[in-house]
Amino acid sequence: MLDKMLENVRKKSPLIHNITNYVTVNDCANITIACGAAPIMADDDGEVAEITGICAGLNINIGTLNSRTIKSMLIAGKTANELKHPVVLDPVGVGVSKLRTDTAKKLLEEVKFTAIRGNISEIKTLAAGVGLADSGCLAEKRCLAEKGSLAEKGSFAEKGSLAPKGVDANTSDKVTKENLAAAVSFAKDFSAKTGAVIAITGAIDIVADSSKAYCIYNGHPDMSSITGTGCQLSSLTAAFVTANPDSPLEATAAAVAAMGYAGEIAHERLTPLDGNSTYRNYIIDAIYNMTPEMLAKGAKYEVR
Amino acid sequence: MLDKMLENVRKKSPLIHNITNYVTVNDCANITIACGAAPIMADDDGEVAEITGICAGLNINIGTLNSRTIKSMLIAGKTANELKHPVVLDPVGVGVSKLRTDTAKKLLEEVKFTAIRGNISEIKTLAAGVGLADSGCLAEKRCLAEKGSLAEKGSFAEKGSLAPKGVDANTSDKVTKENLAAAVSFAKDFSAKTGAVIAITGAIDIVADSSKAYCIYNGHPDMSSITGTGCQLSSLTAAFVTANPDSPLEATAAAVAAMGYAGEIAHERLTPLDGNSTYRNYIIDAIYNMTPEMLAKGAKYEVR
Amino acid sequence: MLDKMLENVRKKSPLIHNITNYVTVNDCANITIACGAAPIMADDDGEVAEITGICAGLNINIGTLNSRTIKSMLIAGKTANELKHPVVLDPVGVGVSKLRTDTAKKLLEEVKFTAIRGNISEIKTLAAGVGLADSGCLAEKRCLAEKGSLAEKGSFAEKGSLAPKGVDANTSDKVTKENLAAAVSFAKDFSAKTGAVIAITGAIDIVADSSKAYCIYNGHPDMSSITGTGCQLSSLTAAFVTANPDSPLEATAAAVAAMGYAGEIAHERLTPLDGNSTYRNYIIDAIYNMTPEMLAKGAKYEVR
Repeated sequence: MLDKMLENVRKKSPLIHNITNYVTVNDCANITIACGAAPIMADDDGEVAEITGICAGLNINIGTLNSRTIKSMLIAGKTANELKHPVVLDPVGVGVSKLRTDTAKKLLEEVKFTAIRGNISEIKTLAAGVGLADSGCLAEKRCLAEKGSLAEKGSFAEKGSLAPKGVDANTSDKVTKENLAAAVSFAKDFSAKTGAVIAITGAIDIVADSSKAYCIYNGHPDMSSITGTGCQLSSLTAAFVTANPDSPLEATAAAVAAMGYAGEIAHERLTPLDGNSTYRNYIIDAIYNMTPEMLAKGAKYEVR
Repeated sequence: MLDKMLENVRKKSPLIHNITNYVTVNDCANITIACGAAPIMADDDGEVAEITGICAGLNINIGTLNSRTIKSMLIAGKTANELKHPVVLDPVGVGVSKLRTDTAKKLLEEVKFTAIRGNISEIKTLAAGVGLADSGCLAEKRCLAEKGSLAEKGSFAEKGSLAPKGVDANTSDKVTKENLAAAVSFAKDFSAKTGAVIAITGAIDIVADSSKAYCIYNGHPDMSSITGTGCQLSSLTAAFVTANPDSPLEATAAAVAAMGYAGEIAHERLTPLDGNSTYRNYIIDAIYNMTPEMLAKGAKYEVR
Repeated sequence: MLDKMLENVRKKSPLIHNITNYVTVNDCANITIACGAAPIMADDDGEVAEITGICAGLNINIGTLNSRTIKSMLIAGKTANELKHPVVLDPVGVGVSKLRTDTAKKLLEEVKFTAIRGNISEIKTLAAGVGLADSGCLAEKRCLAEKGSLAEKGSFAEKGSLAPKGVDANTSDKVTKENLAAAVSFAKDFSAKTGAVIAITGAIDIVADSSKAYCIYNGHPDMSSITGTGCQLSSLTAAFVTANPDSPLEATAAAVAAMGYAGEIAHERLTPLDGNSTYRNYIIDAIYNMTPEMLAKGAKYEVR
């Protein structure tokens, strides 16, 4: 099933409009090409509607958002909705600033997303913003959702408890075998609320729509030693959901499994002197060389 | 001849001002150093005139243009003209949005370029904008030039027929052995109109002034699997024309041949697990290690 | 001593806010992770105060500054001061434009820096701006400081004599064995004036506070063939001074020695076909794999 998703990306080679951050943009472009799609990066409000128009899908990443690009994200998102193009949201660092939280909230209100991909802290913050406070609360001491609605969080008095590693997930939020059932149910609820496929990535990845979830066990812990593997995955996801418009859940699961599997293949290539920079290159290389057959064999998941 | 061009870059090590996109800017900087020149990236209108002033050449790339940087491109371009510094234009994605088309048109009107480098779709779009509608029309079913002057193209009703792969060339525009003579004549005409050396890069590269053209056969198809080989080549071109002020045609041809030859050398290094990310690194490495002698032997071209 | 500094970065894994240029930002993020810290890049004035607030340290790099980000730099810098977080300044290209010079001057006036890292031309330009004109004048023919106060340099009539290689050091400014004593004394004086640890990097690196200086002999000349090794070092420095709040001098010296040593380790890995792109990757890899023990053995320095 997942192999078909990759096969379609290679076959259709969709053009994807990315409004993304300047930290990882080059890697996002190269991994988009590596999977078989084609990227175009454009973020000026004077052209994003047209760019979205000539593309087949859109990826919005709020990583280094600013007042100029926020406007562009909203225009592009709405245009993509009108054209019925798939749209992916990567809410990088939502919760670490009012600007990011407000922007993510506004995007959720004004744009219908096909898929939303983030780490558990980001997704919980988003979910709290749409009133999923209780259902979003996993069995943990410090649950973001308990902190009140995001709209009230003008100041960051409670900093430190929220995403203390900036754009990385709060350790206390981590999805483990113990809380997996709760996390899956949370993801399904959030999908029901938003209509988007929800991808929560971490040691165990969850990809869910309102009724079905893939729990994906691919990947390597060292992937977190590279800046932007999450951003890259969101770009991949945009390519996959665009090439598979009728199967957003499977397409997203395939992108997530492909990225994790690439992390495994790339890690095996590393020699003792290699570090995170070489690892970054090898992951993109692995996506480039991944065949649908390889993905079918390499993907490790269960459906819940 | 072409080897002398590279030799001069290494000898003079010109400082090149790049106003370029944030997707490929790091690769542009590294390849500029690799060929022997030195890059400085600056795009604020409050400093670009001064930056251009301390540099010896300028490269303008409209890849992720925005209202702020468009202003800077015009200031820098005019300053470079006043100082008689070489200026290169990379009209990335011209034709995919009114903003890019208008900006490219304005740049052509207000700045005199030493060289313009783009793929065939971009160059045809530019040419149509300066009234080269008919002469620019190669023997193809869908000729951009037939679509009327760019100035009239406020909306993008005809999207899909124009640069359908975003910043990549339209397949139907491709330069082949069959239409090479027409393409060469088109390039010469556009050069006569603009006074700039025209570099049309693709499977076969054409570098032409109004009377003479180099058809260059270096390169590897997989180069298109890397984001920004075009941008990198434009940065190289700026370095080459700056170090060889009296030979803009040969300098541009040398840059184009060097890039293609680097693509060949780098491709030979690839092992089965390598993909586009490693290929990107190896191409820059190949420019770094290329001697004038190697270029003299490796360059494959004919003069028309 | 220096090994302890690295050990603390690995142990505490501080979150570092980087406001940096878009040329080398990805490398800055990856090297920050490589040394054991965590980066977050954010430059909108609507969020920088909050981002600084959740981080433990701040790095300000003026490489591709613009009117929007300059404002953000000032807000973030002042916020970090209020919170008593370490702040590092990388005055990339100060002196090449009035905008950079004015910005650096303003930052020095309004923000208290823990460490300032630049090449000798940049640091001399900064020093001249705070009235260190004479003491800053090394025994050289063309001394920037003789050119009058930076505030008076509206136009760049004297271009060519100031940082003729753009963001690289003026060759005539180079720190050598001959002028080392003068350069050390200059660095100490500038540190006394600013209260910041001064890191002047080049063939010989000087890291000084007002009374003590480390002269560091690590590194490889080919490091200058990579864009952004300076930027990367400033990000490293921010991580090191943040993890070692009581030892800013030793922390900065450790970061500088680690970077130089990584340049040596990486250079030994290079094969004949490798160039500056692979070298870039290997340097980040070397930081990733560097243990405190390795640094203790590999660091080459004397204290003056």
